[in-house]
Order: sequence, then structure tokens, then C-alpha cells
Amino acid sequence: MSFKVSEDVAVCGGRLLKLSHFSQVIGTIMNVNVYLPKQYYSQTDNKVIPAVYYLSGLTCSPQNASEKAFWPFQADKYGFAVVFPDTSPRGGDVPGDPEGSWDFGVGAGFYVNATQKPYDKHYQMYDYIHKELPTSLDEYFSNGSRLDFVDNVAITGHSMGGFGALAGFLKNYDANRYKSCSAFAPIVNPIKVPWGRKAFGGYLGADEEAWKGYDPSELVKKVSNRGNDRILIHQGTKDPFLESNLKPELLLEASKGTSWEGKIDLKLVDGFDHSYYFVSSFVPEHAAFHAKNLGLI
Amino acid sequence: MSFKVSEDVAVCGGRLLKLSHFSQVIGTIMNVNVYLPKQYYSQTDNKVIPAVYYLSGLTCSPQNASEKAFWPFQADKYGFAVVFPDTSPRGGDVPGDPEGSWDFGVGAGFYVNATQKPYDKHYQMYDYIHKELPTSLDEYFSNGSRLDFVDNVAITGHSMGGFGALAGFLKNYDANRYKSCSAFAPIVNPIKVPWGRKAFGGYLGADEEAWKGYDPSELVKKVSNRGNDRILIHQGTKDPFLESNLKPELLLEASKGTSWEGKIDLKLVDGFDHSYYFVSSFVPEHAAFHAKNLGLI
Repeated sequence: MSFKVSEDVAVCGGRLLKLSHFSQVIGTIMNVNVYLPKQYYSQTDNKVIPAVYYLSGLTCSPQNASEKAFWPFQADKYGFAVVFPDTSPRGGDVPGDPEGSWDFGVGAGFYVNATQKPYDKHYQMYDYIHKELPTSLDEYFSNGSRLDFVDNVAITGHSMGGFGALAGFLKNYDANRYKSCSAFAPIVNPIKVPWGRKAFGGYLGADEEAWKGYDPSELVKKVSNRGNDRILIHQGTKDPFLESNLKPELLLEASKGTSWEGKIDLKLVDGFDHSYYFVSSFVPEHAAFHAKNLGLI
Repeated sequence: MSFKVSEDVAVCGGRLLKLSHFSQVIGTIMNVNVYLPKQYYSQTDNKVIPAVYYLSGLTCSPQNASEKAFWPFQADKYGFAVVFPDTSPRGGDVPGDPEGSWDFGVGAGFYVNATQKPYDKHYQMYDYIHKELPTSLDEYFSNGSRLDFVDNVAITGHSMGGFGALAGFLKNYDANRYKSCSAFAPIVNPIKVPWGRKAFGGYLGADEEAWKGYDPSELVKKVSNRGNDRILIHQGTKDPFLESNLKPELLLEASKGTSWEGKIDLKLVDGFDHSYYFVSSFVPEHAAFHAKNLGLI
């Protein structure tokens, strides 16, 4: 479970580590960036440092959000680490989209465990993100470290990554795996929109019942909110994918009459698009939300 | 002097306008991004909004710093606009580097007025940045606007752009053109380093006396500080160009015995490199510096 550090970059008061490691569940080398906040490098601070997992959207590598989402100032403000995983396996014999488009295959793993050939060999992104990666990071940094990548952690993401965060949070809710969940312009009901139907069809096969196990708008009907847990979502009104693939209102409708009704804070923000300009504008609000849920404030 | 708005993007509390216009002095279409802060869109605010010019480094277009330097939060905090000009003319018959490298020609205009053929036809970046662009922006936004792109303005930049900011500030100091100047990892003594010698040789010709008119380390000897004006510079210690092309100590040495001695605040920051991770980490400090000099705080 060892990581190779390809770069170690000073950012704000901490460091961004560009890491790679061989993933057993994926079967390839995977890249992941981790920002360690200034508190980690402090000689006097001794609080345990929780982590926020940020799942990126279609086509992104760990670099995009590291460069453009501007988490480091917020991580330093509250004292959490940020993990930027990749969006799919890459390289070697990893199959891409037969159509050659950008919404399936490499850069578009959709954070599910593929069951269909030839994708099942490497596209095991669900197990990678929610099991192997956290455990591996915890092990790698464990030597006397105050970092916690497993127990007191939050999850968020953008677009496909917002879907991945919502699905991962809800599927692991009863195990209390994530203490906090938010999303930026997420795909909330993948089984009903083109991006999700193409991905689920390719990775999970023709049986749509199997798709529901990953769909946030199905999961809210099956998972019971423990009390007052809330989910924070921002969505720009000028997002070009709003009406075709995102449709956040479908999650609110699905939550009606369930224990999640009224506990999903969907904030429609006027004039914002789907870019990192949108994401970075609301990272401070998401950071404060997670910091509160992680017991940092 | 009209501008075409190719994109108008919501960012933080304001908008990033991606503009282009035909420049008379350059003789081509030029791209420029302008961030207008939330105060500009406020119905109740009536303060005049000054501008900070951010000159980018080698190879950059207006997009790089717009996406990665994170000025918008700071612009909203203090109430200034930010102008991101391009680094050279582009397209059509604009000649590039005969050697095909990235440190001369397109993306590397060095903010000087070229006197040598074939560069003299389009590479008039000094007049563009310090005269035509501000006037054009002021004219374009003048209709009842509270924006000031000419009178109460600051200038900063990164690397080649840090040089451009220092040279432009000092060359126009007696005219009180810029109220504030800072730089991120600037080239401070171009006539003594490879990047500067190549650029000045190509744009200004063999006579090195002509080069001195643009060199910050020469200009500090000729321009008298009015009183307590200070220049803020950040420089990372792990910058790969530190010892070959940047050498900030040369500016401090040049200022010794002049009216600028002790008024150039060079902050060597441990472990930082030459990237936007470095720039964005110190934008808040530069923003506060300019806000004070512009009378905003």
C-alpha cells in the first residue's frame, strides 16, 4: 500500500502531495493528490486532522480541482486534509469508450464497480474510493501521524463526482462511514438522464434494477436519516447541463415523504455555470459545512 | 475602442468578462479578461471602484491567472476590479520566436515596445498595457459607471509580468500613473539574465543602453521615491528559475544608496515554487497591500 510522491508543492500554509500507488482493486497505478493543511506541519498543534474527499467530474484528473477549486485556504482555516482522487483507471490495457467520447470510459469511471466486460477488470471505482484508497492513505500516513482518512471524514464532489459523493454517502450511511456530504452541480438521478444511462448501461449492464443501487434518488427512499443530518447542494442556474443531466429537483421530489424530506439544502445560485469558477465560488460555504459536521467548529 | 464580450461568467460575488478588442497600437485583436467585483453590481454601493492590473508570465493567456490565481474573493473583499491582459499579440502575421521556444515571441511580449523588425510591427506591449488598454477600458465602461481603469490603479504581475509591473510602475512613477506596485517572482534585472537578454536583444536590438530604459534595477537609480512608497515582492525559495533568471537580490543591491533603499519588501517564502500554487497563496497579501494604497482600507 505504498505511495510514490511525484511532487510535494508548497500551497498556502500546507503542502499538496501528488501521489501514485498500485491499486489492488483497480489493477493499475492510480494517481491521487492530497492537500495537508498547515496544522499538520505545526509543531504545537495536536488535534487529529480529518479529511474531505473531493470527487471530480467527467474528464478530470486530480490536477484540475487541485489547481482550480481553491480548497487549500479553507483547509488551513479549519484544519482538514483534502483528497483529490482520479476519475477512472488510466493507461495500459484500460478500455475507453468505444464511441471515443468523453462521458464514458477513461476520465468517466462514475465511481461504480463495473460488472460488464471489458470494464469489470479495472473499473472498480466504488471499492477504490470508499474502501481501498482511505485504508491505503491511513496506512501510508499512520506512522505517528495525526491524519485521519477513515473515521472522521467528509465527502463532496462536482457533477459526476457530486453523484459519486451522494451515492457513496447514502450507500454507506448506515455504517456511518462519512460524517458529512455535499455536492456541486451533481447528477442526482443517473438512471433517468443520458450521462447516467450511458454509464450504467456500459458498466452495469442492461438490468436497470442493478442501477438503482447507485442512484441517490432511489437511495434516499431506502436509507433512514438518523436525525438531523443534512446534505448541501449548490447548482448554478446557467449550467448548460442543468436540464439535460443534472435536474436536482428530482432528488428533492424523491425525498418527499422520506426521512430526508426537508434535509437536502439545494441552493440554486443565479447565473453560475458548470465550471471551476462556480465550484471555487462556493467551496468556502461547503468547507464551513463540513468543518461543522467534522467537529472542527 | 469597443470591446466584444465573448463570455460573461459568474464568479464569487461578481462577474469575469472575457473581452477582445482591436488594438490600434498592436495592430491585432487583443484578448483581455476583466473581473468586476460584487460592489459593481450592488444597487446601494456608490464608491468608485479602482482596478488592479495583473500582468501574466511567459506562455500565459488571460485565462491562466483568471482560473488559477484566485483574485475574485480578494477583489470582492476590498472592492477593486482586476484586469488580466494578454502577454503578447497573437495570430495572423504576428511573428514568433525563430527558434520556436516559449521565452520569446508569442506569449512572451515582455511588455516592451519593440524597435526591431519584424517585431516592431505588432509587439508594442508597453504602449498597449500602460496607455491604450486603460484608456479603452475606461471609455468602454464609462457610461455612468463607477469603474476607474486609469486614475486610481495598481499594477502587479508574475515572473515576466512581475518585471512588466515593476518597469511600468517605475517608468511612470513621476507621472503618478500607478498608486501601488507589487510582484510575484519577478525578473528584476532583465539585462543581466538569459530571459531578459534574449527578449531585449530580439525586441530592442544590440544596443544595451536602450535596454536599461526598461530594467527595474536601472530605473530605481533614476526615479526618486516621493516619500514612503513601498514595493512588495514575494519569491519562493524552491523556484527553479530563482538563480538563473529571477535573482531578486539584484534589485535590492541596485536600490542601495537610492531613495528606494529599504522600501522594497522582498519576502523570500520557504519551499514555494514558480507556479500558480505559489501565486494564489500570496494573492491575499498583495490584495491587502494594493487595497491600502488605493485607499480602500
